[in-house]
Amino acid sequence: MPTTPPISLDVNGFFDHLIGPRGLSRAEVDAEAARVGAIIDRLEGRRVAGELPFYELPHDLESIAAVNELADDLKGRFDTLLVLGIGGSALGTKTVIDAVGRGPGGMRVEVLDNVDPTTIASVLSSVDLARTAVNVISKSGQTAETMSQFLIVRDRLRGELGADAYGAHVIATTDPESGTLRSLADDEGFRTLSVPPRVGGRFSVLSPVGLLPIAAAGINIDELCEGARSMDARTRSRDVWANPAALHALLLHLAATEGGRNIHVLMPYSDGLLRFGEWYGQLWAESLGKRFDLDGGLAEVGQSPVRALGATDQHSQVQLYIEGPHDKVITFIRVARHHADLTIPPSYQDIDGISYLCGHTLGELLNMEQRATELALAAAGRMTSLIEIQRVDAGTMGQLFHLFEVQTLVAGGLLGIDPLDQPGVEAGKRLTYAMAGRAGYEELVGEVEEQLAKKREDLVLG
Amino acid sequence: MPTTPPISLDVNGFFDHLIGPRGLSRAEVDAEAARVGAIIDRLEGRRVAGELPFYELPHDLESIAAVNELADDLKGRFDTLLVLGIGGSALGTKTVIDAVGRGPGGMRVEVLDNVDPTTIASVLSSVDLARTAVNVISKSGQTAETMSQFLIVRDRLRGELGADAYGAHVIATTDPESGTLRSLADDEGFRTLSVPPRVGGRFSVLSPVGLLPIAAAGINIDELCEGARSMDARTRSRDVWANPAALHALLLHLAATEGGRNIHVLMPYSDGLLRFGEWYGQLWAESLGKRFDLDGGLAEVGQSPVRALGATDQHSQVQLYIEGPHDKVITFIRVARHHADLTIPPSYQDIDGISYLCGHTLGELLNMEQRATELALAAAGRMTSLIEIQRVDAGTMGQLFHLFEVQTLVAGGLLGIDPLDQPGVEAGKRLTYAMAGRAGYEELVGEVEEQLAKKREDLVLG
Repeated sequence: MPTTPPISLDVNGFFDHLIGPRGLSRAEVDAEAARVGAIIDRLEGRRVAGELPFYELPHDLESIAAVNELADDLKGRFDTLLVLGIGGSALGTKTVIDAVGRGPGGMRVEVLDNVDPTTIASVLSSVDLARTAVNVISKSGQTAETMSQFLIVRDRLRGELGADAYGAHVIATTDPESGTLRSLADDEGFRTLSVPPRVGGRFSVLSPVGLLPIAAAGINIDELCEGARSMDARTRSRDVWANPAALHALLLHLAATEGGRNIHVLMPYSDGLLRFGEWYGQLWAESLGKRFDLDGGLAEVGQSPVRALGATDQHSQVQLYIEGPHDKVITFIRVARHHADLTIPPSYQDIDGISYLCGHTLGELLNMEQRATELALAAAGRMTSLIEIQRVDAGTMGQLFHLFEVQTLVAGGLLGIDPLDQPGVEAGKRLTYAMAGRAGYEELVGEVEEQLAKKREDLVLG
Repeated sequence: MPTTPPISLDVNGFFDHLIGPRGLSRAEVDAEAARVGAIIDRLEGRRVAGELPFYELPHDLESIAAVNELADDLKGRFDTLLVLGIGGSALGTKTVIDAVGRGPGGMRVEVLDNVDPTTIASVLSSVDLARTAVNVISKSGQTAETMSQFLIVRDRLRGELGADAYGAHVIATTDPESGTLRSLADDEGFRTLSVPPRVGGRFSVLSPVGLLPIAAAGINIDELCEGARSMDARTRSRDVWANPAALHALLLHLAATEGGRNIHVLMPYSDGLLRFGEWYGQLWAESLGKRFDLDGGLAEVGQSPVRALGATDQHSQVQLYIEGPHDKVITFIRVARHHADLTIPPSYQDIDGISYLCGHTLGELLNMEQRATELALAAAGRMTSLIEIQRVDAGTMGQLFHLFEVQTLVAGGLLGIDPLDQPGVEAGKRLTYAMAGRAGYEELVGEVEEQLAKKREDLVLG
């Protein structure tokens, strides 16, 4: 198969020439061009200084080759790979496998990314542990959900295979030097892969975190990384009109901050790309949803990502998108060429209301519906953008990942916040520790009880 | 199994005594109590007049028995039921099957709710048509996606089984008297079920639309409807403080219209209930997202529904919920008793950062995380509510469906819009007809071309 063609980004749907007075003008973009250029320069400077190592992941051919070698070894010895991880340790893998599908010779890959006992019991009862490898992924080794999964799975593996043999089934992806899971792996003799330093979970899909399970599924990670590299070349330009990541970031930023559009809907017309909306959802929400700006001022910013699916959600969400408040931007993803397209047969040529469908393919119908929805939204003065991909393959996914990662960094620069941290989740973790009886968190138990006491029973119905 | 216990609704998280000055006061609710009472009265009046027949669906024991009989017949003759439908014709079925799971003796039920050729080819290649029944669901028989699916599936069935035999595999759920699918079914001799008159797709889960495939999956539809009836008894009260549907509707309405919270997140801590967020998403978006109010004035209202999943989205969305704009309400669903709970074994008792997990069950961990997230949001001044269910079963799902349906009607009353129509989707349908060459829509082709001409190529990158 030839190199994946470049994806295109059509932003006409933001502008007044298409959607009328509620649209942006080119002058508004030009007015911010210098600021965007400066943000691109700053990112480039930080990249050169080694502060943004996620940029280099798809260029690290040595690490990619090592992952391929390990994946080949696993494919030769096991049928199933059970991935234990949550958030950024799971979403990239699930996204690529949903989109591209298991490749030739690929293992069955199951990702446990929650602690729902019903799901975990069901997955565990469906795998043959003797033929299963386990990839536990946690940078610190203290992620409660992942380590709980691991304790349960390790217990079963050990029971079935014996204390000496089970370790050969485990690959730990964790901090290269320190942390709980690194020590455990050293003690138990697990094989390990490293989460590269200073690469956060939501930017880790092209690190060994995502690459090992994706390669194990038989998907070509060289093509995946090649796609990211090709997008890297397109997203370094400091000309906002030529850099798709910068242009999309700026337009979404203007839509949110000037236009009150606090919701961004990602709506692929492809079942396999629905999960990409979840990967993007973590990236956008966790990176931009921040209380303080870089100067410590109160910001409380962040556009809310929403995933939708065409054509299905035309029968669910589009009524709201067309007629509701002017509070959202909808980005479509359209697939030019669908795998294995199906033609609608000419069975009821004489029946009005059906006959017009006959002879079209389902892919044509999907794409006509996408175009119709886009134009109907434009006619209603709603903001949209359109990403067109030629086909759903590894190279396209690499392009999409890199495009959205850079877009997120530029958007963070425009908001003046740090897109790489996530301080807001600490409070909930500490309260969980207190409830679960973790040593050192005893003083928080009183806080929990005090809060719960404020829940007066007469405001609970039932 | 005993009757499903009632679900509870805890609304403390909306109020100032828990979340501080950004919360609502009881006085604000009291001020609207009379208006809500009047809305309940009006709904009751319309119900008595036969204008809201969805209320009667779970009480129609004769129809429920007829569906059970047909489902038993199908279970005896086929292995798989292929449901062709989209939007309200698919979501209720998928929701119940995801939550409750296939029951004893149940058929495998596959729901095609999109026209993605990759998915449809994959499902069709996985079923044995000789052992498959097909339930095509469309009130009008002109739903483009459903009829396209049907033309393809009918062609394959006919090819494999012959023109005389294939019709015995098809059940059409459609308008009781008229429409394209009703005529087709009469001509071809398909068995039929009726979409009850004046029951819209998003209120149809407890009609034959949802009940047949749910019963075919081996799930007890008597318990499902019994759950809805028990909630019906609780949601007729005109006292806003005693009626969970009315109280939740009013609080969400005040949060949106007075407090700028234009997003409502539904976040179950249960994998099986994630799909319920999609069912609710259609109901809330399509019912409340309206351009005009009942007097014809410009309204452009409607809160945007978002689905999330605990604990997974603590690692994705909760950073934004805690630190981002005060633009959302988060409703948790918590399951008191998980099926097949798993205990975390005491394997690493000596390792700090893991040992506190040992001995807890996964269900306990999930519920501690839910509570911790709820309290952390309250401490950050964010609005939440909590639905607690005792277990995920058919009776609980019936309660949830009815609760949210009545809540939606009350919310529509508060907004002064018609929650039962969806005029905004017509424009997109007409443009699709024009592109696909449907007779009578030729004059719109020019409009499409004119719109497309406005998309200037220099705003397309790539």
